[in-house]
Amino acid sequence: MLYSKLFPKTLKQVPSGAESVNHQLLVRSGFIDQLMAGSYTLLPLGWKVYLKIENIIREELDKIGCQEMLMPLLHPRDIWDKSGRWSDPNVKEIMYQFKDIHEREFGLSFTHEEIVAYILSKFIKSYKDLPVLLYHFSTKFRNELRAKSGILRGREFIMKDLYSAHISEEDMWQWYEIVKKAYVEIFKRVGLDAKVVEAAGGVFTKGHTHEFQVLAESGEDVIYYCQKCDFAQNQEIYDGEKKCPRCGSEIQSASSIEVGNIFPLGTKYSQALGVAYQDENGKSQDVWFASYGIGMTRLIGTLVEVFHDEKGIIWPESVAPFTVHLVGLDLEEESIKTEAEKIYKLLQAEGVAVLFDDRVGPSAGEKFSDTDLIGVPYRVVISKKTQGKLEVKKRNEKNTHFVTLEALVKMVR
Amino acid sequence: MLYSKLFPKTLKQVPSGAESVNHQLLVRSGFIDQLMAGSYTLLPLGWKVYLKIENIIREELDKIGCQEMLMPLLHPRDIWDKSGRWSDPNVKEIMYQFKDIHEREFGLSFTHEEIVAYILSKFIKSYKDLPVLLYHFSTKFRNELRAKSGILRGREFIMKDLYSAHISEEDMWQWYEIVKKAYVEIFKRVGLDAKVVEAAGGVFTKGHTHEFQVLAESGEDVIYYCQKCDFAQNQEIYDGEKKCPRCGSEIQSASSIEVGNIFPLGTKYSQALGVAYQDENGKSQDVWFASYGIGMTRLIGTLVEVFHDEKGIIWPESVAPFTVHLVGLDLEEESIKTEAEKIYKLLQAEGVAVLFDDRVGPSAGEKFSDTDLIGVPYRVVISKKTQGKLEVKKRNEKNTHFVTLEALVKMVR
Repeated sequence: MLYSKLFPKTLKQVPSGAESVNHQLLVRSGFIDQLMAGSYTLLPLGWKVYLKIENIIREELDKIGCQEMLMPLLHPRDIWDKSGRWSDPNVKEIMYQFKDIHEREFGLSFTHEEIVAYILSKFIKSYKDLPVLLYHFSTKFRNELRAKSGILRGREFIMKDLYSAHISEEDMWQWYEIVKKAYVEIFKRVGLDAKVVEAAGGVFTKGHTHEFQVLAESGEDVIYYCQKCDFAQNQEIYDGEKKCPRCGSEIQSASSIEVGNIFPLGTKYSQALGVAYQDENGKSQDVWFASYGIGMTRLIGTLVEVFHDEKGIIWPESVAPFTVHLVGLDLEEESIKTEAEKIYKLLQAEGVAVLFDDRVGPSAGEKFSDTDLIGVPYRVVISKKTQGKLEVKKRNEKNTHFVTLEALVKMVR
Repeated sequence: MLYSKLFPKTLKQVPSGAESVNHQLLVRSGFIDQLMAGSYTLLPLGWKVYLKIENIIREELDKIGCQEMLMPLLHPRDIWDKSGRWSDPNVKEIMYQFKDIHEREFGLSFTHEEIVAYILSKFIKSYKDLPVLLYHFSTKFRNELRAKSGILRGREFIMKDLYSAHISEEDMWQWYEIVKKAYVEIFKRVGLDAKVVEAAGGVFTKGHTHEFQVLAESGEDVIYYCQKCDFAQNQEIYDGEKKCPRCGSEIQSASSIEVGNIFPLGTKYSQALGVAYQDENGKSQDVWFASYGIGMTRLIGTLVEVFHDEKGIIWPESVAPFTVHLVGLDLEEESIKTEAEKIYKLLQAEGVAVLFDDRVGPSAGEKFSDTDLIGVPYRVVISKKTQGKLEVKKRNEKNTHFVTLEALVKMVR
């Protein structure tokens, strides 16, 4: 992609009202644009990051046998009445609910348990139809009172939600562990060190469920975790012990951002929506449910909160919008321009995703500020000084070095 | 994918209230499920078709320099007040508009001209920033009075909308032609013979604009077109001539489905939202706009209306959820089962998308009914009778023939 054609260009100034780091950096670098409080357009650069994350999640979930689909966003009241949640005061606070001009009542999706249960109620007949694991990437709406954390907490955002249905509690817990492992792999692949943190059981279990938390100064959550082993608990259930109950090492605490959660739901929704199956003896049984969420836009915000410096974003390679930011300097000289264009095309031909700053005019300093702000992993410079070689600098390193095109291609693969 | 694991299985009966062919077939074959009138879940098979179409469109639009992003669905009233459309009675009929519990007014997206203009107003400064072509695949909501055409006309559906912004009317028309050609290519690639049909100019031009129409008995539109050349007009502007004004051949008429449209918008939205640029002389000028839509879910419905027979759907290869539907018969015999599983794995290793009917129990007749209903391009049978060969039948042909695995792989590539 030519930077001269990219929409939009970077901004010099921090947007007014942007309090959080992710909001400031993502807006200044041209990844997102705010439509209103808590609602953002994912601009072309931001959308590229989104698609890369989506693809990683799709691969990992498909690998364990999940099936992707897409459920609607506008929900009729009657289905939400079945679970009783339509009239729950906590729900009424965050769910946009309204009547249309024909007095029909609708709510906008903030989660999909009722809808997925409604769908399953039509199709699940026998124990042979289970287990089934269904997921979608989908817009969610939540009428948050305050929405000041950039894309960490929006009124409109994208989530991956997965729902699993089972013949028994045992099968549910077995899949719960399988999905937990897939989640660990997903966060690792997007470049995040997410801790599996024990949390309160919620609607169904008295035991622990799990959240995936990423340490970050700006996080709204606090977790307590062992310095040595993988023991970790959220503030809600942590009992104040100074030593790890597993290995005896010291417990420390830190702010963190919740990037994913997994919930065993038991038979609450199957009973409410009538999702039952016939067992091997022909007896009707309730289906067991669990749900698993990853906040997609929140994940992008978390990456920025974790990976940035005073100059801008530092994207992990697996989710970066481009792999190479090729910076042409001295492009008013025909020979340099021709050289830079040649390298741009050769890199593309090698399958490398390149953003080429082809602008004539801006100074080297301006161009380098932009590369630092945008945060592509490899900055590659061609100028009068580079003399047929390529000057490479990784975004997260200080040193530059000179390499051939061949070496560069090897490096970025 | 194993058919035994696929969610959901085919249905024996036509769902009640399903009047249109696409609704009947897509529900029976397990591609979609109705949540309420005009609102459908795209089930795993339907979602596979959707993603294939999305990918074709993405490739063709990126090829001409369009940039993908994602705009929000929940819009604040004030931006829609700027164009005056919030209070337009025609808009109020179809746009879901409501107040939240804090008395803030919102509307749900049925189109994005206002939003894209608002975004551009922040970033477009100079003639150097233009042209820019931005698109997204996004949910749309329309409060349709009747929603009886399956996924041809929904209350919630997915559209690809593209918006282009230009320095001049001339540039706008130039890009209009470029996008028109990309659209022709897109419809060709998804397997549809879409006619480019002249339509009334709409808000901006007194000349003609263009719709993309696919002939279909069930279509709500009527078009008049030349038997020999590519002249075609919609009912609204057709003046009743019997002979083609271009080549003199006979004009005929037919029902059709509109799958895409392209609209020059002029400066209406740039004036309303303040989208201006500085020209080479430093003078402020209005930006010229055009918009281009493709109904994504409608396209899936159209494919079914056009490509089906009394037994089920006949997907074009480019958008089929799988390329091969491998049917194992006599699977209770261990040697046949082993053979079928081997072929399934070998085909997958060759990169062929295979749906493998691995069920033990259903008769050959039941399995063949399912393959015909689902409509995957190649049916491949392994049974006692096939003796180490593969019995292949194309969904749109009558004859079966026996081939080796190697020949099959060549055939489906």
